[in-house]
Amino acid sequence: MRTKKLALLGFGNAGQAFSEMLLKKQDDIREKYGYEIIVTAIATNTKGNLIGEDGIDLREVINDVEEYGKFCNKEQLTEMTTIEIAEAADYDVLIEMTPLNIFTGQPAIDHIEAAFKRSKDVITANKGPIAWKFKALEQMAADNGCKFYYETTVMDGTPVFNLAEKTLQLAEVTEVKGILNSTTNFILEELAAGSDYDDIIERGRQMGFVEADPSMDIEGYDAAAKITALLNVLMDADITPDMVDRKGIEDITIEDIKAAENRGNVIKLLCKGARDHDGKIIASVRPEEVPKSDMLASIDSTTSIVSITTDLMKTVSIVEHQPEIEQTAYGVFGDLLRVLSE
Amino acid sequence: MRTKKLALLGFGNAGQAFSEMLLKKQDDIREKYGYEIIVTAIATNTKGNLIGEDGIDLREVINDVEEYGKFCNKEQLTEMTTIEIAEAADYDVLIEMTPLNIFTGQPAIDHIEAAFKRSKDVITANKGPIAWKFKALEQMAADNGCKFYYETTVMDGTPVFNLAEKTLQLAEVTEVKGILNSTTNFILEELAAGSDYDDIIERGRQMGFVEADPSMDIEGYDAAAKITALLNVLMDADITPDMVDRKGIEDITIEDIKAAENRGNVIKLLCKGARDHDGKIIASVRPEEVPKSDMLASIDSTTSIVSITTDLMKTVSIVEHQPEIEQTAYGVFGDLLRVLSE
Repeated sequence: MRTKKLALLGFGNAGQAFSEMLLKKQDDIREKYGYEIIVTAIATNTKGNLIGEDGIDLREVINDVEEYGKFCNKEQLTEMTTIEIAEAADYDVLIEMTPLNIFTGQPAIDHIEAAFKRSKDVITANKGPIAWKFKALEQMAADNGCKFYYETTVMDGTPVFNLAEKTLQLAEVTEVKGILNSTTNFILEELAAGSDYDDIIERGRQMGFVEADPSMDIEGYDAAAKITALLNVLMDADITPDMVDRKGIEDITIEDIKAAENRGNVIKLLCKGARDHDGKIIASVRPEEVPKSDMLASIDSTTSIVSITTDLMKTVSIVEHQPEIEQTAYGVFGDLLRVLSE
Repeated sequence: MRTKKLALLGFGNAGQAFSEMLLKKQDDIREKYGYEIIVTAIATNTKGNLIGEDGIDLREVINDVEEYGKFCNKEQLTEMTTIEIAEAADYDVLIEMTPLNIFTGQPAIDHIEAAFKRSKDVITANKGPIAWKFKALEQMAADNGCKFYYETTVMDGTPVFNLAEKTLQLAEVTEVKGILNSTTNFILEELAAGSDYDDIIERGRQMGFVEADPSMDIEGYDAAAKITALLNVLMDADITPDMVDRKGIEDITIEDIKAAENRGNVIKLLCKGARDHDGKIIASVRPEEVPKSDMLASIDSTTSIVSITTDLMKTVSIVEHQPEIEQTAYGVFGDLLRVLSE
């Protein structure tokens, strides 16, 4: 049995759900892919870092985090920092799940580059690197013979990038459109239903998909990073999020929503990208009115949609319905299966 | 340059559109896949049959069909029948696009079996074989080392089968749901808008997606064949269309539609399949009310949707928007690219 060693950078909800999936599906991986997966390093900001060259016991680690909020295995705890782990730990695949800095893509970019320098494969659930430095990272992966997968970065494990790469061969993407930010989608919907803004934020936090500081979502930064990632990968755009014509929902009032409703419309935060006449990619994030009968109007709460238009297949849309943390984990898991099978 | 020889069985709108796509993309195929594609046989019911071991001139053939409604190249016209071509012509890939017999899957099944017996690869745009004999054909393909692709059979070139096979690895499909028949979708929508039934049928015929005899659509036979094909492939169902609990829209009255509307609903012909408690696949096609705010209600005219629920990724939906004949052709074309690249 071949082994594949993973270094997990980040062990928040998604990292823990991914670890649960690895435990649950380890027999299938052995049987269908012929690999024994072992995790040899885990790095976090607040729980400590672990190195275990013969494998870290994921069940124990998950239990320790649940019970004590940190790692407790003294023999495996290390003083190595996250970047040192990326640079020096013994692993085959780096799994980048550290917190996102939406304005720089760092430190995730440094972690990924450190892995590529050592000819290690990389899976990232962090969209920062795909939004800020995709083309250079893709080139670096190619130069070093590394696999580089990032399905989770937009719409979790829903196959968006793989859909285009694996199934729409020779079809050239001409336009991408979507509703990609759950927080704003939820807020707009609840405002339309008559809820108070502060109540909505509070409920969203309790439900786990509104951040402590929701401004990254409300002002459209998260959506801009996502449409940038999509355009970089699907249309070879080579843009960064600051190049997106971005407007969030911060100025949308209940009066705007009612006026839209009187016209038979709803307001949605739409992400769009296409080429202009000169072949330049134009990307935007902005609240727009869509007719209630339109599919976009039916995208409610945490559901999201991407519509991909190509020269050969016209428009195909893919929808992720009400994802939970397991769907994020599945994105990373699916990428790992790709690493194992290619 | 390697060559790949195709036998086209059927040369209706889809066959002609596929041939146009081959002509348009031949440079890309040479460059990116390293193959020269030549068509060595074309079989039809009404236009004659052609054999050309050094290649048939597709541009000439398309022109002849447009101008004369039949093939005219006397040197290549043959007395061989369609099945004889499948059994004896010189080709590498059989492309099955003959007219569908929705009650038997024949004669397409015979054509495909003839190809597999000779260890030839098969691409079918005809859903009959997938609905009536998928498991046996799949086994026969495996036994003879043949590729067997059928993306076009449901939702044209929209990646439904490839989505599940190529991107949702290790995820087990637990439920499939969809709106898969354009004719009934269009009729229900137009009835709701106040149109007269006969007018609707007439307009649908002019627009090209209502058959001369629309009963196969209206009574749900087409939808039953499609959900059967989906379940056979995605859930290993091993069922045939006659096992689907089928009810068409033939009894839906304008009063039913209005009553639904008063409840805030619309009537859609829904296809569904899932396992019951004993693990048996239960499949149905029936008109059902769905809330106007539901995504299913937004699937209008020739747009269609499939929602695939899995253990690991919950529900993912894929939508094909207003396809034309080129999207059917692209399904076959995409399958051909798969044959070339695997």
